[in-house]
Amino acid sequence: MNEPINKIAVLTSGGDAPGMNAAIRAVVRACTYYRVDCIGVYRGYQGLIEGDFKELSARHVSNIINKGGTILKSARSQDFRTEEGREKAYKNLKKAGVGALVIIGGDGTFTGGLKFIQEYNFPIIGIPGTIDNDIYGTDRTIGYDTALNTVVEVIDKIRDTASSHNRLFFIEVMGRDAGFIALNTGIGAGAEEILIPEKDLGLDRLVDSLKTSKEKGKTSSIVVVSEGDKIGKNVFELGDHIKEIFPDYDIRVSVLGHMQRGGAPSCSDRVLASRLGVAAVEHLLDRSSGVMVGVTNNQVTTVGLNKAIKMNNDIDKELLKVAEITSV
Amino acid sequence: MNEPINKIAVLTSGGDAPGMNAAIRAVVRACTYYRVDCIGVYRGYQGLIEGDFKELSARHVSNIINKGGTILKSARSQDFRTEEGREKAYKNLKKAGVGALVIIGGDGTFTGGLKFIQEYNFPIIGIPGTIDNDIYGTDRTIGYDTALNTVVEVIDKIRDTASSHNRLFFIEVMGRDAGFIALNTGIGAGAEEILIPEKDLGLDRLVDSLKTSKEKGKTSSIVVVSEGDKIGKNVFELGDHIKEIFPDYDIRVSVLGHMQRGGAPSCSDRVLASRLGVAAVEHLLDRSSGVMVGVTNNQVTTVGLNKAIKMNNDIDKELLKVAEITSV
Amino acid sequence: MNEPINKIAVLTSGGDAPGMNAAIRAVVRACTYYRVDCIGVYRGYQGLIEGDFKELSARHVSNIINKGGTILKSARSQDFRTEEGREKAYKNLKKAGVGALVIIGGDGTFTGGLKFIQEYNFPIIGIPGTIDNDIYGTDRTIGYDTALNTVVEVIDKIRDTASSHNRLFFIEVMGRDAGFIALNTGIGAGAEEILIPEKDLGLDRLVDSLKTSKEKGKTSSIVVVSEGDKIGKNVFELGDHIKEIFPDYDIRVSVLGHMQRGGAPSCSDRVLASRLGVAAVEHLLDRSSGVMVGVTNNQVTTVGLNKAIKMNNDIDKELLKVAEITSV
Amino acid sequence: MNEPINKIAVLTSGGDAPGMNAAIRAVVRACTYYRVDCIGVYRGYQGLIEGDFKELSARHVSNIINKGGTILKSARSQDFRTEEGREKAYKNLKKAGVGALVIIGGDGTFTGGLKFIQEYNFPIIGIPGTIDNDIYGTDRTIGYDTALNTVVEVIDKIRDTASSHNRLFFIEVMGRDAGFIALNTGIGAGAEEILIPEKDLGLDRLVDSLKTSKEKGKTSSIVVVSEGDKIGKNVFELGDHIKEIFPDYDIRVSVLGHMQRGGAPSCSDRVLASRLGVAAVEHLLDRSSGVMVGVTNNQVTTVGLNKAIKMNNDIDKELLKVAEITSV
Repeated sequence: MNEPINKIAVLTSGGDAPGMNAAIRAVVRACTYYRVDCIGVYRGYQGLIEGDFKELSARHVSNIINKGGTILKSARSQDFRTEEGREKAYKNLKKAGVGALVIIGGDGTFTGGLKFIQEYNFPIIGIPGTIDNDIYGTDRTIGYDTALNTVVEVIDKIRDTASSHNRLFFIEVMGRDAGFIALNTGIGAGAEEILIPEKDLGLDRLVDSLKTSKEKGKTSSIVVVSEGDKIGKNVFELGDHIKEIFPDYDIRVSVLGHMQRGGAPSCSDRVLASRLGVAAVEHLLDRSSGVMVGVTNNQVTTVGLNKAIKMNNDIDKELLKVAEITSV
Repeated sequence: MNEPINKIAVLTSGGDAPGMNAAIRAVVRACTYYRVDCIGVYRGYQGLIEGDFKELSARHVSNIINKGGTILKSARSQDFRTEEGREKAYKNLKKAGVGALVIIGGDGTFTGGLKFIQEYNFPIIGIPGTIDNDIYGTDRTIGYDTALNTVVEVIDKIRDTASSHNRLFFIEVMGRDAGFIALNTGIGAGAEEILIPEKDLGLDRLVDSLKTSKEKGKTSSIVVVSEGDKIGKNVFELGDHIKEIFPDYDIRVSVLGHMQRGGAPSCSDRVLASRLGVAAVEHLLDRSSGVMVGVTNNQVTTVGLNKAIKMNNDIDKELLKVAEITSV
Repeated sequence: MNEPINKIAVLTSGGDAPGMNAAIRAVVRACTYYRVDCIGVYRGYQGLIEGDFKELSARHVSNIINKGGTILKSARSQDFRTEEGREKAYKNLKKAGVGALVIIGGDGTFTGGLKFIQEYNFPIIGIPGTIDNDIYGTDRTIGYDTALNTVVEVIDKIRDTASSHNRLFFIEVMGRDAGFIALNTGIGAGAEEILIPEKDLGLDRLVDSLKTSKEKGKTSSIVVVSEGDKIGKNVFELGDHIKEIFPDYDIRVSVLGHMQRGGAPSCSDRVLASRLGVAAVEHLLDRSSGVMVGVTNNQVTTVGLNKAIKMNNDIDKELLKVAEITSV
Repeated sequence: MNEPINKIAVLTSGGDAPGMNAAIRAVVRACTYYRVDCIGVYRGYQGLIEGDFKELSARHVSNIINKGGTILKSARSQDFRTEEGREKAYKNLKKAGVGALVIIGGDGTFTGGLKFIQEYNFPIIGIPGTIDNDIYGTDRTIGYDTALNTVVEVIDKIRDTASSHNRLFFIEVMGRDAGFIALNTGIGAGAEEILIPEKDLGLDRLVDSLKTSKEKGKTSSIVVVSEGDKIGKNVFELGDHIKEIFPDYDIRVSVLGHMQRGGAPSCSDRVLASRLGVAAVEHLLDRSSGVMVGVTNNQVTTVGLNKAIKMNNDIDKELLKVAEITSV
């Protein structure tokens, strides 16, 4: 591991997130700046196994900072879960003269990276790219801020029609295990109620809250529901259930779905991605490995990949209170 | 009917559409301009029956031209389908000194208006406000252009994630009886296939098309599906069906839903609404009634409300051809 | 001219406009559909002279329908104004086996094309691509609708701050010779006054109008000014002049500038560009030349390039009236 | 000062910023929640002097969280700089039974508030609302994040046309004393060079940088210039100067201006404003005064108004480095 690093590879894996391209661009340009070569690996770990590589120069990543998705594409790889697959990946990297790897993604991406480090002692730095903001060791993940804006813009539109018709809307947003998107967009869109997995409101309190809302003269209501919330089997069942209790309500259900992953990244996500892309290369060149770069208290920091995976970010109690107060 | 018209009422009814507020504003300001009073009726025909009126001056409609929804709110009214309901409405209008009525909405709105004219010979002009563009006698309805932009912006975002993951997306857009939104947004978003009620592609041809797509090396595909399309019971079932035929496809389904009705209106919708709002008042003051104002070949025109309801706009065969050619 | 056309070239020239890429895509895919080859010419007529060509397949134009600008780039060419330059261009086209040419642009583009047809009898079809909407023979030019939306979105933002501060804003929009953008965005943004080259309001009437506005209790005002308007030498001088007359007004001037040319095209522009791109290829294959394809009364039509250049679209008097009425 | 606080007033002052309405809404609703009355003061300190007050209930602030500007309007007040003016303000507050005041704005706002506390010992809490992010004691000011997004969206559009034409653009963004907007949007928009007041690049280095850019084959360039930058008298003069040095460059200048203050606030600004609005009320009810509430390291914190005014936020050196590296 003491040979100099002359070439760094970068890949994106797992669900895509706006800002991944900005991170790729920063990795490539940091390589140019520090005079090491850079190659892009297509389709995540699967491309590592198949040797799907392309040399990337500073010009290759012009005009991508504002594009959603990932130019390197992303994919799940069953093969990388096998020893055989990882061996192929290692051989491909060696053959291409790659001395270190930047992996951009979330939990699954880092788990794969850790395994690879353990087996091959290959230098790897992780960058948190996921809209869910569920990675420990960084205040924000790349794509999260953009997803929040996408969601509030859509809810603003639904609010137009909701208040024109005095309707009750249940809107499902992403976040299977974490309610960050639901809580923040719920506050940001002025939702009357927010349902998240971390805090089981329970059907009874939801019903009470909707009753109170009506008594206060609110003629339309928005309830933001996190994918992972546990009231009802899913948001449609929840809607049906509420309809039984309030038969005179005009209830609509909307599942926002995959649009939440796309779109031009916000300025904040572009800057975050640029910082972390540069930092990842600098840490690799400083012989660091096995860590994720993140931003904590506005400073670039690192955390062990094992911690990033295992620990959880807690929902901020202050935000729950703000949500309660501002929806009176 | 030969008394002078000193006061005009305006209401919005049926599904709301972006630009309705711009139309309300134009009606109010045309009243000011021509020195007649104007009152707004809340919640459509139901507000007419309940006497839910408010005097509107030019200042009341400041800063609403760019707002989605309708400040007068909209509602369905069962009561207006009864003779008793309509009688109450008539008495309320008389009591308030209202001499004529502008109704903004779609099919159902105009049907109600026609009935009222027949029974009470009350002067009424219709303005086509619906995102579906399914009204005869106007090239475009208010809200349609905005909805097209909303849909292509969302599909652009889904395309980001679709092409990052090599996925096949089925995206349902509004249009129960008419495929205008699906056809135009399908072309505009570069969809690989478009399913509309007016042209039954049939499952076999859809399957063929998807196969061809794959053979051509397209790694992601978007299929835009109109609500009213007849393949499969709904878009989810259609997705499941395709999954059975192509088990290795990564298929996702997204129903865009009510966001399509909201948002700030496009410039084109604001201008259209302003023209039609002014024209409606001018026609009423010219003693016209029973017609809808629309735009045909860039000129403001009128058509009988009965025709507007009963006749259909045909899907343009040229557009179907353009869709076929540009998706090769 | 009776040899079969086996290869069609396409170029963009003059000021770029959103939707040019959608038109390029449609030209390329129509070529694929009708089984003729297609090549792209970079940097307009200059690239024709320098032989800056690239073969374009249907895949080359994937994912560009939603991109602003032009992937073929645009440039002014002094050389194409010389006989020598045009001869080089002709020889390059012949050498490359190109049998016909699609030119996307405005006045200047078509003037160059006409000259080339006259000298070399080379088949050329024009597509109107310019945000100014100042081309005769089409109801709308590609990019115009998008520019209208860009402008009203920006004025909506300025309105936020104008009405928070009771300010008078002069906002200059594009349109050196034509007031279409100013008139439509002025109506769409609810401007208090609109200044366009086609209708000289005169300083006195502007001052009157601003006085009336104030008397009516309007606390903020937006005046949309077309580049080509003749009151004052430019918008800054106009602002200074008004400041002298109303020293207590808080006046601000904003020149929107080049942002008006960029951005993702609206759905309407994408569909228009797709229709015209397909139509241009079909007309060339039908041995047509020397015409521009456009959309008139919702139908694709053609007009001689000489007419497209020389004749003017008139400002619609009805729109001027609507502007007057809705700003009371 | 030991009487209970039964009524809280809120005002906005200075330049408006997106999210001010969200802050007002949070103040009003926190008052409702904690069962104290709330009144809004129009036009900042001037309204305080003129007694321009309105009682605000939770319903009054429905549907404003997504609106730019400030429903309470803002204004500069010369009168509040006089002892007489402040005395009138104090008497109005006393007469109305107001026990404490929330002031939303920037430097000037807080300076006025401090003076008022010193003279009348009146409880006041400040909330940082300004797009410039130039307030000490908070990581972000309300409106800053939205302004960043507005700017990068506009530069994205200009980039479309810049790269279609191989042009050099100088784009002036807000920030008279602080380069935060320029630095972050410069990184976010992928600018080739960024000029800020905190770091005098000097004309020579700018010229060098533009030369290098050209040698690297960059065919278009964006230079983001902070209002307060010191090269040239202003951005137009700077453009002229560069034109003299590079006569063959196609140079354009764009001043973004007031649009940067408007628009729907980002989700992040809405959440920040909601948190600070709630916190301001809670601190007043806890008998705190003379401080500004802010967010530091993701926690709500307070800082003395005197410190907030006098101290500066430093430009982060790491960001300067990231800008340099990612523009290679």
